[in-house]
Amino acid sequence: MNPQNPDYQSLAQQVFAQAAFVEDVGIRLADLGPGWCESTLAVSRRHWQQDGLIHAGVQATMADHTAGAAAATLVRANEYVLTVEFKINLLRAAQGERLTCRAQVLKPGRTLTVVESEVYAHHQHEQKLVAKATVTLMTLTR
Amino acid sequence: MNPQNPDYQSLAQQVFAQAAFVEDVGIRLADLGPGWCESTLAVSRRHWQQDGLIHAGVQATMADHTAGAAAATLVRANEYVLTVEFKINLLRAAQGERLTCRAQVLKPGRTLTVVESEVYAHHQHEQKLVAKATVTLMTLTR
Amino acid sequence: MNPQNPDYQSLAQQVFAQAAFVEDVGIRLADLGPGWCESTLAVSRRHWQQDGLIHAGVQATMADHTAGAAAATLVRANEYVLTVEFKINLLRAAQGERLTCRAQVLKPGRTLTVVESEVYAHHQHEQKLVAKATVTLMTLTR
Amino acid sequence: MNPQNPDYQSLAQQVFAQAAFVEDVGIRLADLGPGWCESTLAVSRRHWQQDGLIHAGVQATMADHTAGAAAATLVRANEYVLTVEFKINLLRAAQGERLTCRAQVLKPGRTLTVVESEVYAHHQHEQKLVAKATVTLMTLTR
Repeated sequence: MNPQNPDYQSLAQQVFAQAAFVEDVGIRLADLGPGWCESTLAVSRRHWQQDGLIHAGVQATMADHTAGAAAATLVRANEYVLTVEFKINLLRAAQGERLTCRAQVLKPGRTLTVVESEVYAHHQHEQKLVAKATVTLMTLTR
Repeated sequence: MNPQNPDYQSLAQQVFAQAAFVEDVGIRLADLGPGWCESTLAVSRRHWQQDGLIHAGVQATMADHTAGAAAATLVRANEYVLTVEFKINLLRAAQGERLTCRAQVLKPGRTLTVVESEVYAHHQHEQKLVAKATVTLMTLTR
Repeated sequence: MNPQNPDYQSLAQQVFAQAAFVEDVGIRLADLGPGWCESTLAVSRRHWQQDGLIHAGVQATMADHTAGAAAATLVRANEYVLTVEFKINLLRAAQGERLTCRAQVLKPGRTLTVVESEVYAHHQHEQKLVAKATVTLMTLTR
Repeated sequence: MNPQNPDYQSLAQQVFAQAAFVEDVGIRLADLGPGWCESTLAVSRRHWQQDGLIHAGVQATMADHTAGAAAATLVRANEYVLTVEFKINLLRAAQGERLTCRAQVLKPGRTLTVVESEVYAHHQHEQKLVAKATVTLMTLTR
């Protein structure tokens, strides 16, 4: 996939750097390239739901936001992306010390981009796929 | 819809009281009854994404969690619910001082319950539907 | 909701009249107005899946197409709509002599329109909600 | 993925052989193995929607049914699967002489199985991904 913006890396980095909620939750940018992005989260008790599992909202926030940064690597310098809708399957009870997410553009488009995000829970030396999301984003002009 | 648990209110209240992430984000239980639940959030800058809008992850967390409490009003005393999947449409750019969410069970079931959640943004004296989610939850025995 | 096209009824009728697959399956337009559409299907054995239930594909086709006609009531004379994505919950095993569908625009938009479709199965004198879909459509210019 | 049923192939074949709607639409089983299934459809005018494209309902039927057969390869001899919900992104206007679908189980489970289906349109010597679906199925006992 070909970036339209020579400075695509810094634009996608800003998607993380300037998003207060993502900073507040503790989700950090790990790496990115044309059409993909990876993020990471050190899990603590404040990320739990009522039964000691990582809240679906944490996983959804990570899946959505990382998808947004992946889509942002492919837009022009004067454009940005906004989530239109997403769906997420919580495949397993999510537990562990760390979550990582990899988002990959499935279909770039002039108006709409579709991205898939996979969320993994890391517990000791094991890694398990805990959620998979499909995110539709719209490209807008500033 | 008929609660199976005479003490359904306190069970559904615990879904909020014991969920660290929802407490951390600032989402509060507002009201509940058999098959429905309402919640509220005082929006501040920490809930924003990179363009000054309320993050889709905040809306998704609220929609999912309020749906969980709505489903929890219908389970037995020794049961609990877990989100299997959800999908959410972000209908408008979400801005305002307050979000409210109303979740309503669409179809209760022995194994699976389907709930719809509507998220409203309140700005001055206006209220707008900003997101709608459909949440599928599984009933499990403790 | 306000039609942009004085002749919106005939445009939405064409969505049914010119769709070969929908004609082949036997889905008929029942009624329509600004932002909504209803359709009906006389169920026969050819609509079944392997266990004698009405196939999810029949319900999905009906939900998607009726949503398309509902969205088409709100576009301009030189525009048309195309489904971008949809999600459907199959709420109950679908059986009966007739299916009906009501699609209602939840959020009209310049580029994207979100429509909700409910599918009901009719058996003798009973009517049950068997599926609910949320459909996102894009408006395109001819 | 390990089949629980030594005769898993014939059970999954029956998912196609006994589904009247899928036969009527013209979707044929191509191949299958543990946790996956492929199908094919010779496209004709009767599969079109109002603008000469292959109807989303055709693609959805194919994605859902092929997912069902993929899930059926993993159940026990006295079990069967039923679609609980699915979501599908229509990634491109679908045109061509043939559709093929590959469904792959993403997460098998005792109660719920999640399957991903990809639908490809074949035009002359080109093949394009036109739709991707995520299907949640429940395992039931006969």
